[in-house]
Amino acid sequence: MNVNAYKNLLNEVDSGKRAVMVTQLDQGDCESKFSYNKTLLIENDLRTDNCSYNLNEIVYEGAKNALETGNLQVVKVSEKETYLIEPYFPEPRLIVLGGGHIAKPLVEFGARAGFSVTVIDDRPSFANTERFPDAEKVICESFEKCFDLINLNEASFVVIVTRGHRHDMDCLRQVLKHNTAYVGMIGSKRRVKSVMEQMISEGYSEEKVNSVNAPIGLEIGAVTPDEIAFSIISQVIKYRRLIDRNSGKIKTSKSNWPEFDRDVLIELSKEESTPKAIVTIISSKGSVPRKAGAKMLVYPHGEILGSIGGGCSEGAVINNARFLLRDGGYQIQTVDMTGDVAEQEGMVCGGLMDVIIEPFGK
Amino acid sequence: MNVNAYKNLLNEVDSGKRAVMVTQLDQGDCESKFSYNKTLLIENDLRTDNCSYNLNEIVYEGAKNALETGNLQVVKVSEKETYLIEPYFPEPRLIVLGGGHIAKPLVEFGARAGFSVTVIDDRPSFANTERFPDAEKVICESFEKCFDLINLNEASFVVIVTRGHRHDMDCLRQVLKHNTAYVGMIGSKRRVKSVMEQMISEGYSEEKVNSVNAPIGLEIGAVTPDEIAFSIISQVIKYRRLIDRNSGKIKTSKSNWPEFDRDVLIELSKEESTPKAIVTIISSKGSVPRKAGAKMLVYPHGEILGSIGGGCSEGAVINNARFLLRDGGYQIQTVDMTGDVAEQEGMVCGGLMDVIIEPFGK
Repeated sequence: MNVNAYKNLLNEVDSGKRAVMVTQLDQGDCESKFSYNKTLLIENDLRTDNCSYNLNEIVYEGAKNALETGNLQVVKVSEKETYLIEPYFPEPRLIVLGGGHIAKPLVEFGARAGFSVTVIDDRPSFANTERFPDAEKVICESFEKCFDLINLNEASFVVIVTRGHRHDMDCLRQVLKHNTAYVGMIGSKRRVKSVMEQMISEGYSEEKVNSVNAPIGLEIGAVTPDEIAFSIISQVIKYRRLIDRNSGKIKTSKSNWPEFDRDVLIELSKEESTPKAIVTIISSKGSVPRKAGAKMLVYPHGEILGSIGGGCSEGAVINNARFLLRDGGYQIQTVDMTGDVAEQEGMVCGGLMDVIIEPFGK
Repeated sequence: MNVNAYKNLLNEVDSGKRAVMVTQLDQGDCESKFSYNKTLLIENDLRTDNCSYNLNEIVYEGAKNALETGNLQVVKVSEKETYLIEPYFPEPRLIVLGGGHIAKPLVEFGARAGFSVTVIDDRPSFANTERFPDAEKVICESFEKCFDLINLNEASFVVIVTRGHRHDMDCLRQVLKHNTAYVGMIGSKRRVKSVMEQMISEGYSEEKVNSVNAPIGLEIGAVTPDEIAFSIISQVIKYRRLIDRNSGKIKTSKSNWPEFDRDVLIELSKEESTPKAIVTIISSKGSVPRKAGAKMLVYPHGEILGSIGGGCSEGAVINNARFLLRDGGYQIQTVDMTGDVAEQEGMVCGGLMDVIIEPFGK
């Protein structure tokens, strides 16, 4: 059952959805010290309050909250009931349609801002990896056919900057058929207005059309291609951090984005059940190499998969995890990374993090 | 007199001021075909309408306008009177106080956005050129003494991101004694509020204190150092492009920033008077290597100083300039750069530019 929870988690996240894993750490009467119950709460259910989950209300509300904030949390509901609430967010993708002079800096900035960047152009001289070394994918395909290759979803931030009016509109028609986290289209106010009117006359809803950021980018008076790319990436970050997934509106409190360790999750979703300990960063303060959500697996003989930041601190956590695999139970500990990272990161006051260690699969 | 105009121009610009050079191309009765009258209009005079200049009103208003828009213009006032109006803007400098984890990406982005970047820290391990390869200047000095070294003026965009509260305040006290184009200071809303109250209690005017952008950066929900640097550079660009220098307020029409060829201007300010032709880009469309304001000098035998973009197009302009040095008069011509840059810049429709060629110094 726990294995299936991770399988389902990967499916959800790969379709652009968020999800929350709830682990019951103290299990009341039917206690096991070596494996805890895990329940996956999916975004669609949480949004519509489709409460088929049999969960304590505090935990359920905590999960809904985690879906927006991205924060991990350990909640003690009663003496006998403690829960780990872990939100998982899909990796944000920046899709850049058009490989011209705006795309060039934008792809670079997008990668810097932590997006997995895909850039598409129909001209081989523009759609190549030499031109876009920071892109995860460079696709050379017509703007009609490319949409079969990119799986647009709610984790997609789409920037339309092709070389021409007609291509921009072709792209917009396709993009508006999907639910995406962000759509922006380049163009002057006048030109954009006529495109929008055209889209509405073609039957696209006014709400959908008005959700397009056009003219694209924050209004900073950008002139040069680099400046325009700065204005676009800032707007994209704003949508990533401040969008309310329910309403599509901008909110004031920002989402953290939990780290996502695909390799570890794939390992956890496998049918075979070697006992292992899951180490997860719950929260961090100051300068630490890895942030909340980062995961590492520790096996009985001390082998590991993934990392919570390396260094001596990680070594100490691995030791604790091995004890725990022998004795059972879970453990939350504060790890002081100051000594490890202070020098290289140049922090006077280094970083602290809380991690949870839990057994899995025995 | 013309030589002095260029000397004064360099002085003005180096003190952080804008200025406008007005050249009377047709000189009515007292016509010379080989040297035109030049008048330098300085920012303080134009702002306060200190009209000691004996100028046609259309030209004067054009100069005031150029001071905001940054656009060059040729104005024909009457059959016999044509003027070239050329605004000069000081090179924008980004001063980053503090060399920590925000400064690192910010210095890089600042250079990308076209700023001459100075970064200052009092710790040698943070204030060094290996850490900041894109900085024009890296200064290792205490935050008390460094201000003697950096000549803050209205072309300075100042970002305060030191490692601590106390240093931030020390910097702010110094910075607020100057008129700068932008001041931003990092810090939470709560902390910033108490700093501001402290500054006012120390006698700094409320207007001055309120002009500080704190918390710093556009509100995009930035979390990581890279994201915070994106939010700051976008705000700095906004102040560069959209600030009204009279009111200090943000306006809706953006300033272009004329290119500034110091070498050429120094040459023009020299006392010796070899005849030469000044070639200036007045405006451009599409993708061109150099933009409005860029200057090149052409000498009678074809030697040049500076460049308006290179290639065959430049060669043709040089030839025209040599004819003009022989025959006198000025010339405005449209230059088609399509062939020169289309390939490398990847433009389908290349660039056009208008240039003016005028004789000087004979």
